[in-house]
Amino acid sequence: MNRYAIIVAGGSGSRMGTEIPKQFLEIHHKPVLMHSISRFFDFDNHLQIIVVLPEKQIDFWERLCIKYKFNIPHQIVKGGAERFFSVQNALNTINLEGIVAIHDAVRPLVSQQTIDLAFASAATRGNGIPAISIKDSLRKFNETHNHAVNRSNYKIIQTPQCFKVSDIKKAYFQEYRQEFTDDASVLEYSGAKVYLTEGNNENIKITNPFDLKLAEFLLNS
Amino acid sequence: MNRYAIIVAGGSGSRMGTEIPKQFLEIHHKPVLMHSISRFFDFDNHLQIIVVLPEKQIDFWERLCIKYKFNIPHQIVKGGAERFFSVQNALNTINLEGIVAIHDAVRPLVSQQTIDLAFASAATRGNGIPAISIKDSLRKFNETHNHAVNRSNYKIIQTPQCFKVSDIKKAYFQEYRQEFTDDASVLEYSGAKVYLTEGNNENIKITNPFDLKLAEFLLNS
Repeated sequence: MNRYAIIVAGGSGSRMGTEIPKQFLEIHHKPVLMHSISRFFDFDNHLQIIVVLPEKQIDFWERLCIKYKFNIPHQIVKGGAERFFSVQNALNTINLEGIVAIHDAVRPLVSQQTIDLAFASAATRGNGIPAISIKDSLRKFNETHNHAVNRSNYKIIQTPQCFKVSDIKKAYFQEYRQEFTDDASVLEYSGAKVYLTEGNNENIKITNPFDLKLAEFLLNS
Repeated sequence: MNRYAIIVAGGSGSRMGTEIPKQFLEIHHKPVLMHSISRFFDFDNHLQIIVVLPEKQIDFWERLCIKYKFNIPHQIVKGGAERFFSVQNALNTINLEGIVAIHDAVRPLVSQQTIDLAFASAATRGNGIPAISIKDSLRKFNETHNHAVNRSNYKIIQTPQCFKVSDIKKAYFQEYRQEFTDDASVLEYSGAKVYLTEGNNENIKITNPFDLKLAEFLLNS
């Protein structure tokens, strides 16, 4: 069975307060995106890796690969205006059946077990979405009110989200909607049932300078 | 106006895989609980600090204070079987009006700003509950189903939760309920409106070895 990993990099760097998009910032000797790619290569070195980048960042990335002597084979696909269109572009390059993992470029700390469980769930149940529990109290709010909700009924969702290629391709034929914050929500909207798997606490999404410092520490330790 | 901080330590150490309860584990040269107390003393050295501890840990704590030459003045109150009863015991020692902050002993990284905003909100609106946004996707689930929810309608709740003493004392006259995961939920159940303030990302709750490592790193940096 063919196995793919689509690694989606969309960040422009604005929230980091840096010129360089966050996926290219160096932590623990190499750019964030190289760590993320390596995690999938370590998991399965026959995996077909597809990296989605904003068009204007592709040259820069290729120069980074030379600079860092980064030689894990991967295909590059141009991103779209929203994450949805970026993933759609990548899925359009896959013709065959199999399982595809869709991963945020800025999650360099995904564990081998998280990847493994999500792929295994997709192979048997059609999809596998890594999730972790919430240990703080949780409140739901609107403009005027807020109220406590039972945190044990909620999970924080991570990536890689793994799918049968045919299911997720079909789901991505839908019109784009703003509610689509991740691939599981796209699949769900197409009518399919979503299956949760165990994520890992370290698998943080790097979006601000605090996260970057934390990721550096976790990679060093 | 009188200002109080009740710092609640309930942990037994089981989830940490250690013999020593997590509030007593040493990070960055002193036990977690001493860091938490120091944050409030640094904020206002006239604050009346009340530490709630399980009865069988009180001797150990007093010996730790001697060992570490820890001399921030604080009163010790015996804890109850649930966090609810621990807070109730501490509130019973406060007679006067004023503002009280109720804080988890295992949150040694609360910022001065988080404390300040919560106290200020309590002074003007009756209460102030620190909260942070959720940046990952969120799902609600039960035994058979799960579905995406809009993460921008939810917040992760932290401590210190600050209240007008009279309001929170009245709320704690209620019967204990299992839904009471924090003081804001106790207040809310008494019919009062809850006001959210800005928390800080670093203000993590130490519940497992990963958190402890992270807290050590954050305190060192």
